[in-house]
Amino acid sequence: MSFEDLGFSKIDIDREARTGAPEIIYGMGKTPEQAAAIFARIAANHGRALVTRADERLAEAILKEYPDAVYNPVSRLIRYGTPPRRYPGMVAVLSGGTSDIPVAEEAAETAEWLGCQVDRIYDVGVAGIDRLLAQRERIRKANVVIAAAGMEGALPSVVGGMVRRPVIAVPTSVGYGAHLQGLTPMLAMMTSCAAGVTVVNIDNGFGAGYYAASIQQLVWEARHGEDIVS
Amino acid sequence: MSFEDLGFSKIDIDREARTGAPEIIYGMGKTPEQAAAIFARIAANHGRALVTRADERLAEAILKEYPDAVYNPVSRLIRYGTPPRRYPGMVAVLSGGTSDIPVAEEAAETAEWLGCQVDRIYDVGVAGIDRLLAQRERIRKANVVIAAAGMEGALPSVVGGMVRRPVIAVPTSVGYGAHLQGLTPMLAMMTSCAAGVTVVNIDNGFGAGYYAASIQQLVWEARHGEDIVS
Amino acid sequence: MSFEDLGFSKIDIDREARTGAPEIIYGMGKTPEQAAAIFARIAANHGRALVTRADERLAEAILKEYPDAVYNPVSRLIRYGTPPRRYPGMVAVLSGGTSDIPVAEEAAETAEWLGCQVDRIYDVGVAGIDRLLAQRERIRKANVVIAAAGMEGALPSVVGGMVRRPVIAVPTSVGYGAHLQGLTPMLAMMTSCAAGVTVVNIDNGFGAGYYAASIQQLVWEARHGEDIVS
Amino acid sequence: MSFEDLGFSKIDIDREARTGAPEIIYGMGKTPEQAAAIFARIAANHGRALVTRADERLAEAILKEYPDAVYNPVSRLIRYGTPPRRYPGMVAVLSGGTSDIPVAEEAAETAEWLGCQVDRIYDVGVAGIDRLLAQRERIRKANVVIAAAGMEGALPSVVGGMVRRPVIAVPTSVGYGAHLQGLTPMLAMMTSCAAGVTVVNIDNGFGAGYYAASIQQLVWEARHGEDIVS
Amino acid sequence: MSFEDLGFSKIDIDREARTGAPEIIYGMGKTPEQAAAIFARIAANHGRALVTRADERLAEAILKEYPDAVYNPVSRLIRYGTPPRRYPGMVAVLSGGTSDIPVAEEAAETAEWLGCQVDRIYDVGVAGIDRLLAQRERIRKANVVIAAAGMEGALPSVVGGMVRRPVIAVPTSVGYGAHLQGLTPMLAMMTSCAAGVTVVNIDNGFGAGYYAASIQQLVWEARHGEDIVS
Amino acid sequence: MSFEDLGFSKIDIDREARTGAPEIIYGMGKTPEQAAAIFARIAANHGRALVTRADERLAEAILKEYPDAVYNPVSRLIRYGTPPRRYPGMVAVLSGGTSDIPVAEEAAETAEWLGCQVDRIYDVGVAGIDRLLAQRERIRKANVVIAAAGMEGALPSVVGGMVRRPVIAVPTSVGYGAHLQGLTPMLAMMTSCAAGVTVVNIDNGFGAGYYAASIQQLVWEARHGEDIVS
Amino acid sequence: MSFEDLGFSKIDIDREARTGAPEIIYGMGKTPEQAAAIFARIAANHGRALVTRADERLAEAILKEYPDAVYNPVSRLIRYGTPPRRYPGMVAVLSGGTSDIPVAEEAAETAEWLGCQVDRIYDVGVAGIDRLLAQRERIRKANVVIAAAGMEGALPSVVGGMVRRPVIAVPTSVGYGAHLQGLTPMLAMMTSCAAGVTVVNIDNGFGAGYYAASIQQLVWEARHGEDIVS
Amino acid sequence: MSFEDLGFSKIDIDREARTGAPEIIYGMGKTPEQAAAIFARIAANHGRALVTRADERLAEAILKEYPDAVYNPVSRLIRYGTPPRRYPGMVAVLSGGTSDIPVAEEAAETAEWLGCQVDRIYDVGVAGIDRLLAQRERIRKANVVIAAAGMEGALPSVVGGMVRRPVIAVPTSVGYGAHLQGLTPMLAMMTSCAAGVTVVNIDNGFGAGYYAASIQQLVWEARHGEDIVS
Repeated sequence: MSFEDLGFSKIDIDREARTGAPEIIYGMGKTPEQAAAIFARIAANHGRALVTRADERLAEAILKEYPDAVYNPVSRLIRYGTPPRRYPGMVAVLSGGTSDIPVAEEAAETAEWLGCQVDRIYDVGVAGIDRLLAQRERIRKANVVIAAAGMEGALPSVVGGMVRRPVIAVPTSVGYGAHLQGLTPMLAMMTSCAAGVTVVNIDNGFGAGYYAASIQQLVWEARHGEDIVS
Repeated sequence: MSFEDLGFSKIDIDREARTGAPEIIYGMGKTPEQAAAIFARIAANHGRALVTRADERLAEAILKEYPDAVYNPVSRLIRYGTPPRRYPGMVAVLSGGTSDIPVAEEAAETAEWLGCQVDRIYDVGVAGIDRLLAQRERIRKANVVIAAAGMEGALPSVVGGMVRRPVIAVPTSVGYGAHLQGLTPMLAMMTSCAAGVTVVNIDNGFGAGYYAASIQQLVWEARHGEDIVS
Repeated sequence: MSFEDLGFSKIDIDREARTGAPEIIYGMGKTPEQAAAIFARIAANHGRALVTRADERLAEAILKEYPDAVYNPVSRLIRYGTPPRRYPGMVAVLSGGTSDIPVAEEAAETAEWLGCQVDRIYDVGVAGIDRLLAQRERIRKANVVIAAAGMEGALPSVVGGMVRRPVIAVPTSVGYGAHLQGLTPMLAMMTSCAAGVTVVNIDNGFGAGYYAASIQQLVWEARHGEDIVS
Repeated sequence: MSFEDLGFSKIDIDREARTGAPEIIYGMGKTPEQAAAIFARIAANHGRALVTRADERLAEAILKEYPDAVYNPVSRLIRYGTPPRRYPGMVAVLSGGTSDIPVAEEAAETAEWLGCQVDRIYDVGVAGIDRLLAQRERIRKANVVIAAAGMEGALPSVVGGMVRRPVIAVPTSVGYGAHLQGLTPMLAMMTSCAAGVTVVNIDNGFGAGYYAASIQQLVWEARHGEDIVS
Repeated sequence: MSFEDLGFSKIDIDREARTGAPEIIYGMGKTPEQAAAIFARIAANHGRALVTRADERLAEAILKEYPDAVYNPVSRLIRYGTPPRRYPGMVAVLSGGTSDIPVAEEAAETAEWLGCQVDRIYDVGVAGIDRLLAQRERIRKANVVIAAAGMEGALPSVVGGMVRRPVIAVPTSVGYGAHLQGLTPMLAMMTSCAAGVTVVNIDNGFGAGYYAASIQQLVWEARHGEDIVS
Repeated sequence: MSFEDLGFSKIDIDREARTGAPEIIYGMGKTPEQAAAIFARIAANHGRALVTRADERLAEAILKEYPDAVYNPVSRLIRYGTPPRRYPGMVAVLSGGTSDIPVAEEAAETAEWLGCQVDRIYDVGVAGIDRLLAQRERIRKANVVIAAAGMEGALPSVVGGMVRRPVIAVPTSVGYGAHLQGLTPMLAMMTSCAAGVTVVNIDNGFGAGYYAASIQQLVWEARHGEDIVS
Repeated sequence: MSFEDLGFSKIDIDREARTGAPEIIYGMGKTPEQAAAIFARIAANHGRALVTRADERLAEAILKEYPDAVYNPVSRLIRYGTPPRRYPGMVAVLSGGTSDIPVAEEAAETAEWLGCQVDRIYDVGVAGIDRLLAQRERIRKANVVIAAAGMEGALPSVVGGMVRRPVIAVPTSVGYGAHLQGLTPMLAMMTSCAAGVTVVNIDNGFGAGYYAASIQQLVWEARHGEDIVS
Repeated sequence: MSFEDLGFSKIDIDREARTGAPEIIYGMGKTPEQAAAIFARIAANHGRALVTRADERLAEAILKEYPDAVYNPVSRLIRYGTPPRRYPGMVAVLSGGTSDIPVAEEAAETAEWLGCQVDRIYDVGVAGIDRLLAQRERIRKANVVIAAAGMEGALPSVVGGMVRRPVIAVPTSVGYGAHLQGLTPMLAMMTSCAAGVTVVNIDNGFGAGYYAASIQQLVWEARHGEDIVS
């Protein structure tokens, strides 16, 4: 059997073999008891675990049993264990403004937990373009770029035209009015005039970090294995 | 009476005295006969006239009687007569891409017909930021900046952070999919992270050109008259 | 370097030279500590500072260090310092109803902090058109008109047809049901039948006040300098 | 039986007794054959008939058999027969602009076919408020006011504050961009700051005319019958 | 002067002469102090007053000074004074379900405060059509019908086909999911297959009651005056 | 292998065994050549085939090879072959208006092709409720009821409260304005106040007919087999 | 009379005869007093009752009088009494994730209260397809399948292609950002590439359970009665 | 200078050095003359060129001068020249249905033009899950997976849970009704329950192919250069 059945949850224990990472626990909508039970099984199977969108109650339930786990209320992640390897090359994580940092941190910490090295470059929104231009070389050195921005979400378009590497755009829910809780930057990033940009869900720092790690994993395997290249 | 009643239309002949410009004729949804009749009355009253959103049929009906009128099928404007004065200082009209030029031209020609001098700076979208940066000084010299852009509409945000002058953002219907016929850049411009930016309707080059002219008119009167300053 | 790097924030100290005003602090989504740290750097660099969307906690953190700063819980602004000059001519700030006053005040106080003189004309919504008509001459005397309205947002359309000066429309979130948290008046203002109207984001009194000041700054420079006119 | 069954249609022959008017034929989506067959049955039962949204093909099929029927390609109505009575008092039909006239005509001709007297007052949109104010007394004399407007749809709000009579607002699909094919004026009219205004569907001149007639019918019966008043 | 200026509010004291009813106070977004001050002026001028959307704090502030005023927390109305006349004929107020009663009550009490007689017919939604059919004759006796319904908002369509009188549809915010806070029944009522139906804003019981009263006022004047009929 | 690979299409030949019906060909977006090739393979495997959303070009390409196939331009179906069995009991197919018949026919003919008996009851929309009530007993006799309606889509709500059987609601794109191309009746049907109603996509008569047949198949197997009941 | 009139509610006592189930009480928007009064009348008439969307206050008011009633705060149902018969064959209730269980439970318990046997198969979302495939045979054994899923709502599409039985899709409000409170999975389920799927409102587990029971009732009557088959 | 100025276009000749690929020409909204002029300059600078969204008129204008260029009316691409290198490893391009092939081909041909090897796996939509499962190993061998799907867009969610490599989801405009021209699958893909998925604009096959190539370029450089790894 490829999964373990808890009744309310079927834990996908085969997932690490299949995708390179254990199942990650989405904290929202789970009771502390459910989250803790799932956590315990994943930690037992893989020696590490990650919970996203965890509130204080979830964190308390889990850290009571796993005092080595780390909870960051800004990124809302509970991280436990260390990655099996550390990938070479950098993932740059950019934020448009100070208020986008929680989402950017979710991306950065997820990527780190999965084995990436992260270069955080915050508050480089396009309204003060020189702040971004001053970081141009640093950004161009990264293997993958994550750009989290709220408001009108223009940052990935500008960055996308600067670099030769894949850019992952993360719209954030920071804004008001016509911003529509993040729908506006999401749609704007979708229709970006720059090629080389893809988009994840609003505030989905986790998804961006995970995706960056899947690219870094590919690069690492390309250097170390023979199987993926003809 | 402040207007002239044609039954299907009440021409606002008092408007030039009140707002500084004669009534402008919105061509869409009018029959050629209606448009020509209104045109004739405005031309008779003011010695000049402007029609927006004019198709070939409207242009034909009007130019038959007014051969000096000029029709541009790109901007869809019919312009007739010259402005009473020419304002000092420049209105910069930017377009994000080549496909945004029809809207940018509608803005530029409207502003010119109202007495402005216009500096056209086209295809400076943010995906190739160096093209825009190369024009920075030229843009900063303008009194007013109009920025027309489709796709994600990020141009006004970047420009808004570069200049000390009012920026008028014009979303265009150039794009597809998540672009939502221009709704996405419109919402994005609305929620721009740059201060100093206001927005007009999708493809409303006319509105942007008119607004720029109303600012230039204010500047001109500020230099020549006494009445508007304490 | 054109900015000062606090890690979580890159302060755009070059902005006053570039745009005529110091960076303004958007309070929402910042912790009191972050806001206070940014405030301190801007106050040190420019001798004045403005925070928008400030709640009581932010105000407390900042006023503890800067007792001369003024917090208005209606407009949610923290103002500190005085403008380098006072512009001649009036900015008229209109509100459609009593409930739109907080947004109108944000516009008015922002404009004043930036050096404008403001004429407040409140509760002149179009459902009682005589209240507006009674103010017609007063409104026509202004250099720039700001019209804040919720509900259906018709005020700027009527005002736009009355005056020769630029009108800045501010949709407010006052209303319910089909009002869609301000989206309806925003869209309505966008598609106004009056020329000479541009629009800012829902409840963005700050943006309207800033824009009005940028026009007044242009007028002032047109009168005093030579550089912006040919 | 209260209806006549044609298979593809069940004609509601009881409707005149029940509601005061025969079933009206909605032309859109019907084949000429279907429309003509329904028309023939209603004409036979009631001696009069009305078709809305009729195109040239429908009109041709019906007028071939009923040469006394009248087709107006502007209002897209086919009218046949005369009303059993003519109601005292006026229905005022206003249009915001020249381009809204087709919808206004649909309202006016529907009301006339149902027995109303109509006062057409066109091109009185709020951007030139004096054109509307000049008609104030004429509008106030009406028993019911229909206000058809596209763009931002502000006309009913202003009119609603002027009169003591019920106002029926008709949003039209005249506009572009943020106008959203009439959705914007419809929502705006819904959230009007004036009491005494109700709204019908976009471009639904027929519905407005019918509603006005139902009010006039009530007034007429109030004067002539005893049954509806205690 | 046709209004009284309190600074934050311009009270439209001319409104009763113009429209037949004093200005009604929209409670939402006003402070208790503002509401009480406006109430006092209207009560002084007209001897009666109505506040809508009043919460407990507003009610307390007003009833302290006007103990004869009546506050109903279900309809959220504060009513004070009696109507100058009582109109003959009935206004039927229908609710689709029990949960729509607060909106229906707002309509009913508004109409009563304005002089109407009201017949309340509640919980007659279309899912149990026999409940509605059982009331058919009672509904047909009314001069005007108000139909408040949430969910899919089908009630006015069925009622509209039953009666010869004007129907005012009020969508309510009762529902969830695809109901979109009332937007769905509002749109559905707009596109009703029944003629003779107009629509007011979501939860706008007040607007429906006011409109019904304006029709009843017309009927009353038609019977008693000569001025509105030719 | 459970499918046959044509490169541009993988035909699911196992589907009849798995779901009770061969793969049905969705005509839209396929070239005539693609559709004809898929048709040929399915006809060869199963002795019958069904194409939905077929235009004249598709029909021509297929009927050239299969002259026994039947094309109905109203329902846009191409039907070929006969069902292996005919289910007892009736599927009632209702349409709100005459204009909804094409969608109703798509449902009816699909159900028939799959072995159902169909009772067509057209033009029974709720605005003339007596037309529907007159059919009440006939509708109550059916095993399954399909109700296709445009405009506000109220028909399924009324029917849902009349019968003890499952109702399948089909919103149609018949309407205009607030009808939003069928989105409004779809949302309204979703939030129906009647239990016992489920919804399929706008204009998806096929889906409704298919679903009805899957219920009839279940009933038939319940009577004839032993395997589905404990 | 087919209903019992409580004033605020008209209880449809005829409903069980007509549709096979007593009126079910929708708890939301009702006061505890109203809910308890309706409950008492239904329990008296039918010996059983069901309340949906009940919060703690409602449950307390009802259980005080009916201590045998059962309240489940997860499904928010209050169940009282037993079904008159138990239907053979299984209703499979699937949930995409652990967080969708409350909605799935509402479906399962409703179906059980109405006489169905339920097989709960939880946490089988498509992102770990092998978890679903492992349940394939179990799912194929059911007479009806309910699939509750949030996020992108893909579960019913995959299940729909696996089974020969009707699938009822229930979108849930579990998700964030582009998920739009469940609107996205609802729309996605609507436009499913699988035939044999219908959809109920977001979080409407009750509606799905009720619909499944109406199918099971039909199957049961088909086996035991003669009246529904020709 | 980093670009070449044609007035209506500023060609970004520096782009290949900066991003690894020459500027790609977006055909939509450009006249044949504009497209041909830009094409000529890019071909001259880089020896190769790519035009997207090209119609027959554009293709004719360009192929007249460049007979070696290849135009595919299905993908709407004009390809000219060969890539400087061919990347090892495969890009898998999946389509949900036959009708999604034009978008999938745009992705495949773009990736090939940029140097990728492509494995096309078409018509593997989730409604016949076995068709997809049969390709599982083939898909797992790819370095990057592109999944183009219309309707409800569930394909990427299922694929995302099967592979360890980055998945690029492309919503297509294939569908109707609730599909909202592709908005529904786009939103659904955004909120996918699978990690490892990012999304591009509706029908943006080009963007997906370009992104896949940027990942393949990174892998290639990781194997051949030293500069991107620490």
